[in-house]
Amino acid sequence: MNKHLENLIQVLEDNDLDLAYISDPTNIFYYTGFLADPHERTLAFFVSRSRKNFLFTPQLEVSSAKDAGFSGQVYGYLDQEDPYKIIAQHLTELSDKFRNVGIEKSQLTIARFEQLKKILPQIDHFFDLTAAIERQKLIKTNDEIQKMMGAGEEADFAFDIAQKNCRPGITEIELVNQIESALREKGVLHVSFDTLVQAGKMAANPHGEPTTNQVKDHDLVLFDLGTVHENYVSDATRTFAVGEITDEQKEIYDVCLEAQLTAMDYAKPGITAAELDKKARDIITKHGFGEYFNHRLGHGLGTSVHEFPSIMEGNEMMLEPGMCFSIEPGIYVPGFAGVRIEDSVHVTKNGVEPFTHTSKQLIKL
Amino acid sequence: MNKHLENLIQVLEDNDLDLAYISDPTNIFYYTGFLADPHERTLAFFVSRSRKNFLFTPQLEVSSAKDAGFSGQVYGYLDQEDPYKIIAQHLTELSDKFRNVGIEKSQLTIARFEQLKKILPQIDHFFDLTAAIERQKLIKTNDEIQKMMGAGEEADFAFDIAQKNCRPGITEIELVNQIESALREKGVLHVSFDTLVQAGKMAANPHGEPTTNQVKDHDLVLFDLGTVHENYVSDATRTFAVGEITDEQKEIYDVCLEAQLTAMDYAKPGITAAELDKKARDIITKHGFGEYFNHRLGHGLGTSVHEFPSIMEGNEMMLEPGMCFSIEPGIYVPGFAGVRIEDSVHVTKNGVEPFTHTSKQLIKL
Repeated sequence: MNKHLENLIQVLEDNDLDLAYISDPTNIFYYTGFLADPHERTLAFFVSRSRKNFLFTPQLEVSSAKDAGFSGQVYGYLDQEDPYKIIAQHLTELSDKFRNVGIEKSQLTIARFEQLKKILPQIDHFFDLTAAIERQKLIKTNDEIQKMMGAGEEADFAFDIAQKNCRPGITEIELVNQIESALREKGVLHVSFDTLVQAGKMAANPHGEPTTNQVKDHDLVLFDLGTVHENYVSDATRTFAVGEITDEQKEIYDVCLEAQLTAMDYAKPGITAAELDKKARDIITKHGFGEYFNHRLGHGLGTSVHEFPSIMEGNEMMLEPGMCFSIEPGIYVPGFAGVRIEDSVHVTKNGVEPFTHTSKQLIKL
Repeated sequence: MNKHLENLIQVLEDNDLDLAYISDPTNIFYYTGFLADPHERTLAFFVSRSRKNFLFTPQLEVSSAKDAGFSGQVYGYLDQEDPYKIIAQHLTELSDKFRNVGIEKSQLTIARFEQLKKILPQIDHFFDLTAAIERQKLIKTNDEIQKMMGAGEEADFAFDIAQKNCRPGITEIELVNQIESALREKGVLHVSFDTLVQAGKMAANPHGEPTTNQVKDHDLVLFDLGTVHENYVSDATRTFAVGEITDEQKEIYDVCLEAQLTAMDYAKPGITAAELDKKARDIITKHGFGEYFNHRLGHGLGTSVHEFPSIMEGNEMMLEPGMCFSIEPGIYVPGFAGVRIEDSVHVTKNGVEPFTHTSKQLIKL
């Protein structure tokens, strides 16, 4: 039984629960190694405190679930069958009576919950596992961190391609094509989000998309990208200079870099997410660019780029070894330029280690 | 007030509901024109029977919501604020008392529902809007069909690129790169799913991914692709021959084509989804390939490639004008070859019209 699942059974014991019903696909992946998007179909993982469990999937996913390495029972259902009726039968194999059942209230829909209550009519106490699972997923194991390092290497490869192709005349979209083509040819089939390339003043909009805007001499060009490696993601940003840049451009780069490096150095177990955000933000504010840094310092990542912890004002969560998140200060001066410098990191005993290693010093192409 | 929203208010009236709480992002798009993925944040649309409404979004999305053309009130909240507390205040602007409230039980999580019940403690009847909304979305308006035609044109463009580049020696991944690069350069930034290219016997796995497998002379090469056009999608498949093919390859192509064309011709208002599936399946079975057609005939599509109606055994839903779905028979002979021919269509008064027009007759490259 894997460590993640051991920890879930510990949660059941700590809370006197007989059964956990896991319905969120990313949580199911976390406990079984099987990742699938069931869309409207039913995907579920049931674990009893007595350590029996089964995975329940659409019939056409059964072999994929076994191929993914899940060693427990896998039961399938056909589209014309009633999934909860079949689940009810298999639940009797786990135990003949359940009293307290754990569910994910932040993931489970009312419709599915009503079906569960129909097949478990004797239960009146449903415990919310959301916080315990989030807490568990927050701390990555060494194996997860290894996979994220693999994704980080792929992001560094993408920055190499970016540097080799970024020259006056090429468009943002052409650069995206160069990067994603090179990744695919290297065997990286999935990016963790749409690759973002923004040149010159286009980079001043942190919510923009690549366009046919051409890179010009003296532009700062922003590349925000990431890949998926063995189901774990990378996310990193670099901003390169095309030829010589002005003192004004250099200033925002230097201030952003100072904020990024200071946060990298300051991040360690025992400080809070809010304190880390403030550390970087204070530097940008001190130099007069505070209003141009209009987003949080970072976000958690793991199997997606939207996990906990959120590195922002108000989050008093203490950093701990194994947490993974981005550190990505940005300065966006409308009509002029935008700079963002981002590494994603994992917290170690004494500090943080980045997943990407492309130089953050100003690179002139 | 747009037609979609008018229809929702009609649902409120028909069911004696005072308020609808819409939480699914694609449903919010359907009623407001604003599409966003809020991840863990709260996105909600409230509509009262008295025709007052407001959209509630994370603060950083407020301007995008207004830019998307939503003309009603948009309220935002900051990450450190309690969204339901703010929602409670704004609900008083819609009415001073609600008795019956409609929610989407298939979309709303228990956690959000519990928060809603806290701010509306007087409500004891919550009505499930899921079926009514699904029913409404099932029938596309002319405006939606126009957008899907735009997406279909882009898919036809992609098939042109596929035909021009598919030659012995090129790999499946290189073909994906050619297609997606050409689409991006044309301004099509989003595909509706990962472009699939499979050559020769690789095409016998309908759940496969593109690889470094090279196209060979005499291969059948399968291209399954789609784009996103003004938030609506296309989805189509063509299988091309590289040079001359054998009689055995030709036979599975011809049988698959006969099934596809027969289904296109048979599809019309008044027959059921199950009857349509059976019509195509019977042809493939009659020719002895029934076991090699191991998926449903088609699926609905609109803002995503996973909508209703599902064209499969057991679905007794009657086809009606405005429904949009794929017709995609396939024959997958392990170790030999795979053929799938797919158009997505909309149902008209007398039949169906495809969104893609690339020839389905065997094309030899």
